[in-house]
Amino acid sequence: MEFTVGQIAEVLHGAVEGDAALRVDRLAKIEEAQAGAITFLANPKYEPQLYTTGATAVIVSRTLELRQPVTAALIRVEDPYSCFTALLEFYQQSTRTGRRGVEEPSFLGAGSTIGDNHYRGAFSYIGENCIIGQDVLIFPHATIGDRCRIGDGTIIYAGAKIYADTVIGARCVVHAGAVIGSDGFGFAPQPDGSYRPIPQIGNVVLEDNVSVGANATIDCATMGSTIIREGSKVDNLVQIAHNVEVGRHTVIAAQTGISGSTKIGSYCVLAGQTGIAGHLTLADKTTVTAQSGVGKSIKVSGEFLQGSPAFSLRDSLRANAIFRHLPELDRRLTALERNAQTPEKS
Amino acid sequence: MEFTVGQIAEVLHGAVEGDAALRVDRLAKIEEAQAGAITFLANPKYEPQLYTTGATAVIVSRTLELRQPVTAALIRVEDPYSCFTALLEFYQQSTRTGRRGVEEPSFLGAGSTIGDNHYRGAFSYIGENCIIGQDVLIFPHATIGDRCRIGDGTIIYAGAKIYADTVIGARCVVHAGAVIGSDGFGFAPQPDGSYRPIPQIGNVVLEDNVSVGANATIDCATMGSTIIREGSKVDNLVQIAHNVEVGRHTVIAAQTGISGSTKIGSYCVLAGQTGIAGHLTLADKTTVTAQSGVGKSIKVSGEFLQGSPAFSLRDSLRANAIFRHLPELDRRLTALERNAQTPEKS
Amino acid sequence: MEFTVGQIAEVLHGAVEGDAALRVDRLAKIEEAQAGAITFLANPKYEPQLYTTGATAVIVSRTLELRQPVTAALIRVEDPYSCFTALLEFYQQSTRTGRRGVEEPSFLGAGSTIGDNHYRGAFSYIGENCIIGQDVLIFPHATIGDRCRIGDGTIIYAGAKIYADTVIGARCVVHAGAVIGSDGFGFAPQPDGSYRPIPQIGNVVLEDNVSVGANATIDCATMGSTIIREGSKVDNLVQIAHNVEVGRHTVIAAQTGISGSTKIGSYCVLAGQTGIAGHLTLADKTTVTAQSGVGKSIKVSGEFLQGSPAFSLRDSLRANAIFRHLPELDRRLTALERNAQTPEKS
Repeated sequence: MEFTVGQIAEVLHGAVEGDAALRVDRLAKIEEAQAGAITFLANPKYEPQLYTTGATAVIVSRTLELRQPVTAALIRVEDPYSCFTALLEFYQQSTRTGRRGVEEPSFLGAGSTIGDNHYRGAFSYIGENCIIGQDVLIFPHATIGDRCRIGDGTIIYAGAKIYADTVIGARCVVHAGAVIGSDGFGFAPQPDGSYRPIPQIGNVVLEDNVSVGANATIDCATMGSTIIREGSKVDNLVQIAHNVEVGRHTVIAAQTGISGSTKIGSYCVLAGQTGIAGHLTLADKTTVTAQSGVGKSIKVSGEFLQGSPAFSLRDSLRANAIFRHLPELDRRLTALERNAQTPEKS
Repeated sequence: MEFTVGQIAEVLHGAVEGDAALRVDRLAKIEEAQAGAITFLANPKYEPQLYTTGATAVIVSRTLELRQPVTAALIRVEDPYSCFTALLEFYQQSTRTGRRGVEEPSFLGAGSTIGDNHYRGAFSYIGENCIIGQDVLIFPHATIGDRCRIGDGTIIYAGAKIYADTVIGARCVVHAGAVIGSDGFGFAPQPDGSYRPIPQIGNVVLEDNVSVGANATIDCATMGSTIIREGSKVDNLVQIAHNVEVGRHTVIAAQTGISGSTKIGSYCVLAGQTGIAGHLTLADKTTVTAQSGVGKSIKVSGEFLQGSPAFSLRDSLRANAIFRHLPELDRRLTALERNAQTPEKS
Repeated sequence: MEFTVGQIAEVLHGAVEGDAALRVDRLAKIEEAQAGAITFLANPKYEPQLYTTGATAVIVSRTLELRQPVTAALIRVEDPYSCFTALLEFYQQSTRTGRRGVEEPSFLGAGSTIGDNHYRGAFSYIGENCIIGQDVLIFPHATIGDRCRIGDGTIIYAGAKIYADTVIGARCVVHAGAVIGSDGFGFAPQPDGSYRPIPQIGNVVLEDNVSVGANATIDCATMGSTIIREGSKVDNLVQIAHNVEVGRHTVIAAQTGISGSTKIGSYCVLAGQTGIAGHLTLADKTTVTAQSGVGKSIKVSGEFLQGSPAFSLRDSLRANAIFRHLPELDRRLTALERNAQTPEKS
């Protein structure tokens, strides 16, 4: 995919300074860009790089005043960052998400419908009585169980596994290998010490604009629904147990685990490798730092938590600062004790 | 799937109080149930909900005495909890695990046999010389390598990957995306600092009634077998390394990792995100709390462990209670030191 | 697969002591070996087991002097360990990695090429314009996106998902369910508290001899490449975020997570369930113990780290030793305070 600087400028409604016939075939950061790349300058902090970059073209502001000569061709626009993001999106679409049509063999179960302008990769599987919107992309080896509903513009990447009865909103992204709707981990202890599985007959609901990372797992509810609300983002290898509810626009980083029936608020941030115990409620805008373990409900909005078990970030930082010096604390204490026991000698 | 209250009562050998012609099409908890749902009341604690529930029908005990009028139809039975569980199991079977037959294209390698009454989903793959029992369900995109043996009534969900030579017992459940039999992480350090892979030629054995969660991974033994004994339950995203042995009826919660050659006893509970170091032995009935890391063998049965590194839960709770107050401890110590250095001033 | 002791001796250029006609059909450790197995003795520490082993045959050193009678047939060679490893590799090849040819249905996109002597399993998917070397094994349900390049002798196990534009070197192993090239977790916060995805248009590069474990995930770079350098080994369920760079011959154990843009040095060891924060640099030969969380760059080569947050292993061990006794420390402090407040009484 190769374009001239002039072609790109035209699309961006920009003005070219330099050779509009130069050709670019990739996007790069200004500090890494080499010949053939187009990049951008939005933050004035990076202006010095403009004069040294190896990029063939740079998107800059209409108002930028050059202080040194530039070798790259410039495309002057109103908002360089937005223009570059538009190029990124265009690039992503042309390389990854622009595919349409059906590759064979693929499987579409009886009674299932799918809207216009979709992609179904080879070996993709759609069960019976599914209702799937338009502009949906279903990559190879994705499995979609019976009676699922999937909204417009959603992307299901390769080998994602969606169990029966799952509901997925519009413009969601489910990355490769993610599992949605597997049985909750519910077993009734028997008198002999063995366990009997409790049937898990609920489902999972992802509202609109939800993203689920690669190889993440979201269990179905025992009864009712496990719910991820609008706009929330779930990273790779995250585990979300049965009957959990995640609020709107909450971000859950990689390898975090949320235990059964817990309710996470909206606008929360759970950093990587966090654990949240079961049957808790976390207020909106709660932030949990990496590797922390939350064992109690958080009732006040906006708290920052750290540690395992977690408490307030501020107190945790202070406690950890002392923790490193525990051997010294012990020595100081021993010295005082020795002193206290032998006052007559001093 | 819709039934009348009368039809359900007949199956459960129950007596209807109210309108037997009412129709229900789903199961729900009493506190969440709405019109069209059937629920149950077993625990007297929830009796008040009986009078306010939106459910169309409620399964109750023959001996329950009503204290207020009820709008729902009642089905009176001997044991409401068991009856409701039976309904759950029936529902699960009719929606998810009742499928039989073969969808095409599917792949069955030379010399492999599979018993009656099975399901093989489209794009399922069975290698050569496998011996698979009856009533086995193999969902789409499951891969079963050469020479595997799988017992009666086992379910392999979508996209599970079973390496060659794996042995799986009867009535096991392997959830979507789980990997069984991948190479153990064994590399011999070379003089130049690089690593040479040690061939991993053993296998994995799951005994009867074992459950493996979505995207969990169980590595094959270097030689011999990695073994999960009867009735043990392994949750999503758990990692079990080469040559590990897990005893009977042990429960391993999500994202736990067990390092190579460790032996976990029977009736143990490993909570979420736990780590167990390699070459250890954990006695029967050991309980490890969430996010803990066990670095030593546990020889006495029935211990509770916490922390990273883990020690006795009781001592860990006490140490953690002080940990939060370390800054205060430090201030108290400093005050004493100041006091001790200036006794003449006091 | 059954061989006589004589056949094996011939291949290993060894001399048989005992019955060369005995038949063996499996490999085992000397302490676990039973009739039908061949094993080896390299470490003199295990010599006593030579006289009690149930193995049918044992590979021993030419120079070993027997102190007791042996029931097993012996094969005397120069280097028993190397000979046994050669047998392990031969066994692995004949059971798992020796397969060649194409099973149908499989999918090979337009413009893609693949070298001689390869295996493509049923339901394997290769996109368009891929360049794949010779002796490559692609197991069932593997997905390889458009424009990928894969070097000679690489093995892609069942259901691994390789996104478009990934570059994989020679003699790499990608285990079942691993995902390579999924979108980095990058979202731009919007004024209303929602998040807008930042297009992730980079790729992943695995150099030669890299191993990626089952269900591990490696995200593509935002722009540029996420890179795993030559010979590094990544275990099961590891998460490597966008723009990470892992040096040469570094070992990353199961369930570890590395956050975005971090650079891990060469010859490092990250133990299981470790977390490394984003935008850090770890010097060569850094070792991080299990469950630790590294929050700062490490500039000096060869350090050992422990804890969450991690600091020097030596200091961490000492601090943890005191941590367990915090309640006692508190009591000692309280006693001193009581003493200090009532000096007149003593």
